[in-house]
Amino acid sequence: MKEPLRIGMIGCGTVGTGVLELLHRRAGEFAGLLGRDLRVVRIVVRDLSRSRPQIAEFASPPPELSDTPANVTGADDVDLVVEVAGGVDAPRDWIVDALRNGHDVVTANKATLAFHGREIFGTAQETGRHVFYEASVAAAIPIIESLESALVANQIGQIHAILNGTCNYILTQMEREQKDYADALREAQEKGFAEADPALDVGGDDTAHKLALLGSLITRSFVDADSVYTDGITAITRDDIAFGEQMGYRIKLLAIARRGADDAWEFRVHPTMISRSEVIAEVSDEFNAVHVQGDAVGPMLLYGKGAGSLPTASSVVADIVRAAKGDSRFALSPDLREIKRIEIDEIELRHYVRMTVLDRPGVLGRITSVLGECGISIASIHQPEAKTDHPVPVVLVTHETKEEVIAQSLEELHRAGLLTEPATRIRIEEFA
Amino acid sequence: MKEPLRIGMIGCGTVGTGVLELLHRRAGEFAGLLGRDLRVVRIVVRDLSRSRPQIAEFASPPPELSDTPANVTGADDVDLVVEVAGGVDAPRDWIVDALRNGHDVVTANKATLAFHGREIFGTAQETGRHVFYEASVAAAIPIIESLESALVANQIGQIHAILNGTCNYILTQMEREQKDYADALREAQEKGFAEADPALDVGGDDTAHKLALLGSLITRSFVDADSVYTDGITAITRDDIAFGEQMGYRIKLLAIARRGADDAWEFRVHPTMISRSEVIAEVSDEFNAVHVQGDAVGPMLLYGKGAGSLPTASSVVADIVRAAKGDSRFALSPDLREIKRIEIDEIELRHYVRMTVLDRPGVLGRITSVLGECGISIASIHQPEAKTDHPVPVVLVTHETKEEVIAQSLEELHRAGLLTEPATRIRIEEFA
Repeated sequence: MKEPLRIGMIGCGTVGTGVLELLHRRAGEFAGLLGRDLRVVRIVVRDLSRSRPQIAEFASPPPELSDTPANVTGADDVDLVVEVAGGVDAPRDWIVDALRNGHDVVTANKATLAFHGREIFGTAQETGRHVFYEASVAAAIPIIESLESALVANQIGQIHAILNGTCNYILTQMEREQKDYADALREAQEKGFAEADPALDVGGDDTAHKLALLGSLITRSFVDADSVYTDGITAITRDDIAFGEQMGYRIKLLAIARRGADDAWEFRVHPTMISRSEVIAEVSDEFNAVHVQGDAVGPMLLYGKGAGSLPTASSVVADIVRAAKGDSRFALSPDLREIKRIEIDEIELRHYVRMTVLDRPGVLGRITSVLGECGISIASIHQPEAKTDHPVPVVLVTHETKEEVIAQSLEELHRAGLLTEPATRIRIEEFA
Repeated sequence: MKEPLRIGMIGCGTVGTGVLELLHRRAGEFAGLLGRDLRVVRIVVRDLSRSRPQIAEFASPPPELSDTPANVTGADDVDLVVEVAGGVDAPRDWIVDALRNGHDVVTANKATLAFHGREIFGTAQETGRHVFYEASVAAAIPIIESLESALVANQIGQIHAILNGTCNYILTQMEREQKDYADALREAQEKGFAEADPALDVGGDDTAHKLALLGSLITRSFVDADSVYTDGITAITRDDIAFGEQMGYRIKLLAIARRGADDAWEFRVHPTMISRSEVIAEVSDEFNAVHVQGDAVGPMLLYGKGAGSLPTASSVVADIVRAAKGDSRFALSPDLREIKRIEIDEIELRHYVRMTVLDRPGVLGRITSVLGECGISIASIHQPEAKTDHPVPVVLVTHETKEEVIAQSLEELHRAGLLTEPATRIRIEEFA
């Protein structure tokens, strides 16, 4: 047997406890495969006074507890630092410190990597150390390894991904149980799929952080999370889901990366209508999925749990094993090329539009002629019969239209008094 | 730049040409990532007289051609041997020779590994070399890497996989276009999805070879391909597909590995009815998919192309990059444990049964009482009305029944003259 791999772990919450549990559960297997033990020797926790019986249950000999990250990042008796504490700025400091002190790092922290990736990967390159981050995107799904290793012979042209289990759970509930958004959110909170403050999830930012990471990886540049167009699911209604269903679509919050002409890239996160015949349309409840289009492999999809203690810990432990085995990662280096970007206004897509109008003679004609004057071509339109002078929904699907054109036209309809409230618009995405 | 990695390739057909094309297409990227070139320096072909313009197009400086595998496996100027020739016994010799001569090996050859894995992986262990075989199962889908690396912290409990694109294409055509088996097969042959002699595909053996490999990997034992229960799709009819659809099922040729009580395992390949609500039920045409159940990650699915020049070459080239990067594999060693097996007769499943009977008064009653006497409990039964004394289908679904019991009962019904032809039986698989 070789010397054990000595692990210093920062954070011992849901994910950290899962890591200890899996290291314990599979200790014999890992010793057999690696010829060495994987031993957690130090743990940093926020509150030293809290009782943590799981540590004694899963880790032996007992790790040294501390509330000071430097006791792990600067320790000489640690070979690998595992960061599972969460946060944005503080973890950046811990990771950079650990790398500078000669440690490889495993992190599950998408936010830190999305905002401070340039500095973190730059430090890794400078110091010749490795950063492993499989658990940071889509938890259990091996999307980082697949993009970096399995698909290395491909130019990736597109990614369409469901990366937030909270949003997917809410949309599934709205669709299957005909729930309102508010009710579905409340249920997700009760079941532990949504935080008390769900803004980061339902607003799309969590998805955008993950997309920034995937985008950086496939373009070998740095995609800042702030530069990703981001729209959440809070404005989606039961009606939109039902109308979509009638037309053969499902609504998903998708993270989209797409390579356009001239090697320019678009990155966006928004509710999206996709054909029900796509495999990713079947991804329901709290599950995640990533659909990748590569020039050699064609379409590929990976599906699994995107959150939770053991699914996340599974990927953290896989990274620990990679580090113990001496595998290397292709570091994203800070001097990577800048890529051209396609901004949201320039993108041409089909759109689903739901308007509420007063059912008066001539209204529909005026709407279609305003849209026609703006150069918008209508693919299909539905208006149920209603009592005169009562509000009635008009649902239409456009042919491919530039984003800024459709946005301005719908505003114009509203200004002209043709709509009783602002129109709802959902982008329709067709897969290659 | 480091010295180039010098590759000797055995075989230059569809896959080999794809490998040359991808190495050429991504040469700049690989040089940047690895700090070294990937250079094919020797190629073994069967027929030296054939013109091969692709070699000159994609490989420079021109590799040395030969029709003698020893010119690659024994070459001193080769660092890595890539076997993409196909076959069963001869490739075993080449791979073993290459390992003994100190080369790592990349192979796409599931049949050789399924039948000679013990010897090949044993030689790798003895010589301290590595065998990379991502392309051998499900071509583009990174299932080997995922099981070995991403899911290393999991005890795998089940695999349900579509591993043969020919069969999946035929079944999709029968379902969507209401084609007969023979017509769907002919079309698959015309489109290049099926061989002129399709026996290895439609008979299930190709799927069994791949399952044996996956089974070996997840149990860390050797599962012989011959020991996998194997039944193909040749007896499936349009009627079975239509009846299945009415009951909410799709029919897929599944490769199934399942861990039962006491760490005993079942391995089987057969047409299977699965609920249409499973994501894998949506996998259509020539696509492959692998559904894995791990104790930490829960369910996970990988979907992509399971054949074709570039999808297969993509995984071969990914293996070449892994070897060039110095990554290691956990070798399957020849002294692995023996596992307990569950034989097909012992397995308890629900079954779909289609019988053809003469519609005479009392026949249905006699059938159900024979089944009842055998201890078979019927979950549902359908018999359309028909003219007296004309053959009519009776379709039923059983509760969980032991394999040998249902097989014997259906034989008994036939012997008793109650059926006009032997009954068709399709196993129903419920996912955990």
